[in-house]
Amino acid sequence: MSQRIAVIPGDGIGNEVMPEGIRALEAAARRFDLKLDFRHFDFASCDYYLDHGRMLPEDWKEQLGGFDGLFFGAVGMPDKVPDHISLWGSLLQFRRSFDQYVNLRPCRLMPGIRSPLADRRPGDIDFYVVRENTEGEYSSVGGRMFEGTEREVVIQDTVMTRTGIDRVLKYAFELAERRPRRKLTSATKSNGISITMPYWDERVQAMAEHYPNVDVDKFHIDILTANFVLHPDWFDVVVASNLFGDILSDLGPACTGTIGVAPSANINPEHHFPSLFEPVHGSAPDIHGRNIANPIGQIWCGAMMLEHFGHEQAGRAIVEGIEAVLAAGPEAAPLTPDLGGKGSTSELGEAIAAAI
Amino acid sequence: MSQRIAVIPGDGIGNEVMPEGIRALEAAARRFDLKLDFRHFDFASCDYYLDHGRMLPEDWKEQLGGFDGLFFGAVGMPDKVPDHISLWGSLLQFRRSFDQYVNLRPCRLMPGIRSPLADRRPGDIDFYVVRENTEGEYSSVGGRMFEGTEREVVIQDTVMTRTGIDRVLKYAFELAERRPRRKLTSATKSNGISITMPYWDERVQAMAEHYPNVDVDKFHIDILTANFVLHPDWFDVVVASNLFGDILSDLGPACTGTIGVAPSANINPEHHFPSLFEPVHGSAPDIHGRNIANPIGQIWCGAMMLEHFGHEQAGRAIVEGIEAVLAAGPEAAPLTPDLGGKGSTSELGEAIAAAI
Ligand SMILES: CC(C)[C@H](C(=O)O)[C@@H](O)C(=O)O
Ligand SMILES: CC(C)[C@H](C(=O)O)[C@@H](O)C(=O)O
Repeated sequence: MSQRIAVIPGDGIGNEVMPEGIRALEAAARRFDLKLDFRHFDFASCDYYLDHGRMLPEDWKEQLGGFDGLFFGAVGMPDKVPDHISLWGSLLQFRRSFDQYVNLRPCRLMPGIRSPLADRRPGDIDFYVVRENTEGEYSSVGGRMFEGTEREVVIQDTVMTRTGIDRVLKYAFELAERRPRRKLTSATKSNGISITMPYWDERVQAMAEHYPNVDVDKFHIDILTANFVLHPDWFDVVVASNLFGDILSDLGPACTGTIGVAPSANINPEHHFPSLFEPVHGSAPDIHGRNIANPIGQIWCGAMMLEHFGHEQAGRAIVEGIEAVLAAGPEAAPLTPDLGGKGSTSELGEAIAAAI
Repeated sequence: MSQRIAVIPGDGIGNEVMPEGIRALEAAARRFDLKLDFRHFDFASCDYYLDHGRMLPEDWKEQLGGFDGLFFGAVGMPDKVPDHISLWGSLLQFRRSFDQYVNLRPCRLMPGIRSPLADRRPGDIDFYVVRENTEGEYSSVGGRMFEGTEREVVIQDTVMTRTGIDRVLKYAFELAERRPRRKLTSATKSNGISITMPYWDERVQAMAEHYPNVDVDKFHIDILTANFVLHPDWFDVVVASNLFGDILSDLGPACTGTIGVAPSANINPEHHFPSLFEPVHGSAPDIHGRNIANPIGQIWCGAMMLEHFGHEQAGRAIVEGIEAVLAAGPEAAPLTPDLGGKGSTSELGEAIAAAI
């Protein structure tokens, strides 16, 4: 049985790192005898928008709905298309319409990557952020009143549902159960945000009863961000609302020095819809076209996609390939300039594919 | 003319660090010939709550309203009184009722304090977080529907007003104007939180026109937290909504290693109501009663209070006193255990008072 993958490079360096992501997937497919079937799409890009006046064709759901995975590059050309148009018109649209209610991001100290934190070694930091990805603070409910006057007031609702919270908690608890430390940390702010966040806490407590062998704690988001910096070794699986998860899943990779190479998975765990895999980095218009963009984020995304398909070993082989090349260092491996090396995007991609 | 100060130690180590805060203020008062008039209050503590069934007496506004400053310790005894009761019943009540709409927190690398960030030296990091302190995400508007069923939904409004945003922006721009770098960074999330945050951005842009010599930029909160870790030297004055400011003003001190010694000021800039000065740290029930709590947060709060009164020189003298003692190190100065020394709360307080 073959897996069908929609390739959506998007904008800027998305187009440069994507071929390397595919190269790594093909290497893993050869080694583990998998069948991967790629199809390319040019929409969900600002170029498409400039030509068509919209980010996606009308029948995008039909076109993409039958795929097993969406392999996504990066979207955004803020000089030409405002971010809220390009993002709500593509990425955020996919998350909602394909009910990708889990956003999963690993935070791991990798060999050969300089952490901005003092005295931390590979192995010291290794956790996942599980972010609710469809509701919460990212709502479209609200508006303005007394517009343009001194009395102007603007209101936006945070909307949390039992269904929405419980299903992401379930995913996070099950992930924690599969990990050696079996630890789950919930991000809250129930001492200040006094209606939604106490509800979040209640649901965590209720869910915890079904997972007696998972060790649960919680922190308010303010001190939790501080603890990411002070005690990143405390964490194993961190579960958070849409906004808090957004913050923690940029901060976590920053603490491990991996913000330029970190992957993220937007998952529909039931496989009713395709899941989407995109590097955390953006389209980086400033370095686009120079063949120096780091392809590791895209390649690591491929590993997460294979794991999502159930090919755990093949996914692990890609991550090990990345680690082997990083560990070789800029002298021995063609690392890109952001990693202190002189390699190009394609040279680094080839080296990783060879290691796989 | 004398300044009237209400002393409210609160709970736990609040009671141990408060005398050292007062000692430092008295030392500065002697040196600069200021008249400070202290009065002590036992309410706004959990002990008071346990005796009276409420955190504050009915006439607390009359009792405190005439003071120039509220010198606050720490509140909270979560084992005996839930946090949302003790906090909404005291600190959050003061902020709203006394219209302390600016929460100001310095983030500065101090000599002798170990930063969790690699390769950062005192002087490298020195910025302020200016947090909106009365509205925004900390609203009391919202509720639950379909309670106890599968359809349960919980809604909480974020409420921003032009008045509320503009006045804190004005404060932040004026602060930036007085600093050598004249730089202001706005925390936003207008790419995801699509109603309130674009409005915040608009008000920042409108206000910026009145301050042409301030250099303004903005970051989305997710990458901003990452940049606090990766590039803390980029920042000078950071202005943020109530929730984003809450997060940034814990993360900033964490990055400078000063979360245990950082001060915070809840300011009513018009002096219509007393402002409140409280250390960032909490009541720390675990170390209470052992005379080992670090009093620097409380002492630094005293410096901010004197600055608020217009006694800039005296405030600076207190900060210099703190820096001199920290720079002496644990061999020469009676630093508390959290700073690697063997001093007690009162010995460290005495050393700083002597340095002033
Ligand atoms: C205790 C809590 C309600 C408070 C806040 O969120 O404002 C605290 O974190 C702070 O920053 O002063
Ligand atoms: C681009 C933006 C809307 C998006 C988000 O906030 O979800 C991004 O920050 C992310 O984390 O994928």
